[in-house]
Amino acid sequence: MRRIAVDAMGGDDAPAAIVAGAVAAVRAGYDVILVGDESRVAPLIPKRVDLPILHTADAFGMSEAPSSLRRREDCSVRRVMQLVRDGDAAGAVSCGSTGATLVAAVLDLGTIDGAERPAIATVLPRRDGGRLVLLDAGANVDCRPELLACFAQLGAAFAEVSGVERPRIGLLANGTEEGKGNMQVRATLPLLRSLDLEVVGNVEPTGAMEGDCDVLVCDGFVGNILLKAAEGAVGTVVTLLKEEIKRRPSGVLGAWLLRGAMRRFRSRVAWDAAGGALLLGTKGVVVVGHGRANPDAVSAAIAMADRNVSGGLVARMSDRLASER
Amino acid sequence: MRRIAVDAMGGDDAPAAIVAGAVAAVRAGYDVILVGDESRVAPLIPKRVDLPILHTADAFGMSEAPSSLRRREDCSVRRVMQLVRDGDAAGAVSCGSTGATLVAAVLDLGTIDGAERPAIATVLPRRDGGRLVLLDAGANVDCRPELLACFAQLGAAFAEVSGVERPRIGLLANGTEEGKGNMQVRATLPLLRSLDLEVVGNVEPTGAMEGDCDVLVCDGFVGNILLKAAEGAVGTVVTLLKEEIKRRPSGVLGAWLLRGAMRRFRSRVAWDAAGGALLLGTKGVVVVGHGRANPDAVSAAIAMADRNVSGGLVARMSDRLASER
Repeated sequence: MRRIAVDAMGGDDAPAAIVAGAVAAVRAGYDVILVGDESRVAPLIPKRVDLPILHTADAFGMSEAPSSLRRREDCSVRRVMQLVRDGDAAGAVSCGSTGATLVAAVLDLGTIDGAERPAIATVLPRRDGGRLVLLDAGANVDCRPELLACFAQLGAAFAEVSGVERPRIGLLANGTEEGKGNMQVRATLPLLRSLDLEVVGNVEPTGAMEGDCDVLVCDGFVGNILLKAAEGAVGTVVTLLKEEIKRRPSGVLGAWLLRGAMRRFRSRVAWDAAGGALLLGTKGVVVVGHGRANPDAVSAAIAMADRNVSGGLVARMSDRLASER
Repeated sequence: MRRIAVDAMGGDDAPAAIVAGAVAAVRAGYDVILVGDESRVAPLIPKRVDLPILHTADAFGMSEAPSSLRRREDCSVRRVMQLVRDGDAAGAVSCGSTGATLVAAVLDLGTIDGAERPAIATVLPRRDGGRLVLLDAGANVDCRPELLACFAQLGAAFAEVSGVERPRIGLLANGTEEGKGNMQVRATLPLLRSLDLEVVGNVEPTGAMEGDCDVLVCDGFVGNILLKAAEGAVGTVVTLLKEEIKRRPSGVLGAWLLRGAMRRFRSRVAWDAAGGALLLGTKGVVVVGHGRANPDAVSAAIAMADRNVSGGLVARMSDRLASER
């Protein structure tokens, strides 16, 4: 059973972009079920594409409070989780509100024993060509050291599924020396070292992006700041560079000659190639796709869910957390 | 009196790079005094350049503990601060250890009334062409809301000296909505709003780099993570892009045509053009130059110190903090 349940109603361009991505995934051999408003979803599916729909009229709106989902068992993002819970699907994908996906996953799937709260893991390109798993990327803004230690286990399980044999765990800090960091970091490092993990110690963002660790652990506030700082800096650099390029004809010609390199470069760092973020710690594989997801990104998110289902992510997370108790 | 005292012994390429930068600054019309080992510094100064030296044999080593400075009144980084304290210089520059510069400034200059601890302010390029003042960039890893409110006042004074008339203050957070942020942020925002400041509210790194605020306030742990994430992301992007460019002759030619644009771009974002970071909250203008400072960066740091002396930075900081008590 490798069926992936996809929330057809979540995302800026839902359901059109979601259905198009699901159709592409089915054509590539993935087993997918869509959840959403059948009258809107069915017309978007071409004939002879085997893409079942679980109908539900209720969809979560981006301006709504995720807590409203408690009373909305019929909402598409909750139905997706229920399919996984009941064994009718093996993994879930939603490109809607991250908060709503998190709440639905906790309500209908629940958390693994030993995982008090789920975390959001995201994957970043590294300078050495590898991939960096960062968690928490924003689910938990204030974290006790014990929760960060749990995140380290969850992130290690995810990195293993991604093919890293003995993932090196780094604790995000403002310096690599022992004793660096704020109170939270100084209390967390000894805890990490007491676990059955390959802990490299404190790691700075620069070092992590160069390849000093495979998993970077931090609370969701700092993790979110790190991601948005990286995004903002790259955006600023690209904007200012474009301004300078446009000033001279030689610049314009040079940029034209570079368009192939730019395309290949983008495919290496683009968010839509990675698929999305992964919810870790719930009893089921849940991929949180990007809100701006285009069809390619939706297909990549489905592929990501499938990969983590077949890699036994949930069992690996459970085993790691059970071994520490 | 606009004389700037420069620690000739601090920095990776000290004293050579420091003296060369100081010489260039003197030739550009600045009034400079060097502090350091005369036998090593004097031979580096060309004849007919009016650059006095205050001799001292002791210099701070990068592997030493900054706390050792308590007993080393003769150390060059402390002598620099003493010149400012005694009115023999108006501002100080050191490209040595940031921790040592901070300790020396607190010991010999002391903090302004109302500033419990100094902060490090750094200036980042913004997407809209403006400049973003970020503080604290790393001096204080754990901050109470009251200290962050003090940083907002110090940052506002610095932005004013840089020519921003009514600086817009942002509080670094993981979302712009009221109520976003961790416990620290949620406790700080109401405090900021109670001050005589133009507070725009919570600001994300992306928004800040786009120009949503002039001053971005955060604790030194998060601020340092933000800076290193920006640096790491830009480094990763540049490395991966270079790899793709080198793969095809068209890419190499394109890059060659872009070299002028790259040069102009670098001069807009380069750390050596900005001069360095500024210590805020001490009774004197102190510029913390980059450890890797080359002569251009040293000249820029001297110019930055001079600008903030003539702009009355210390008086502005004192006035702002006094008005709140």
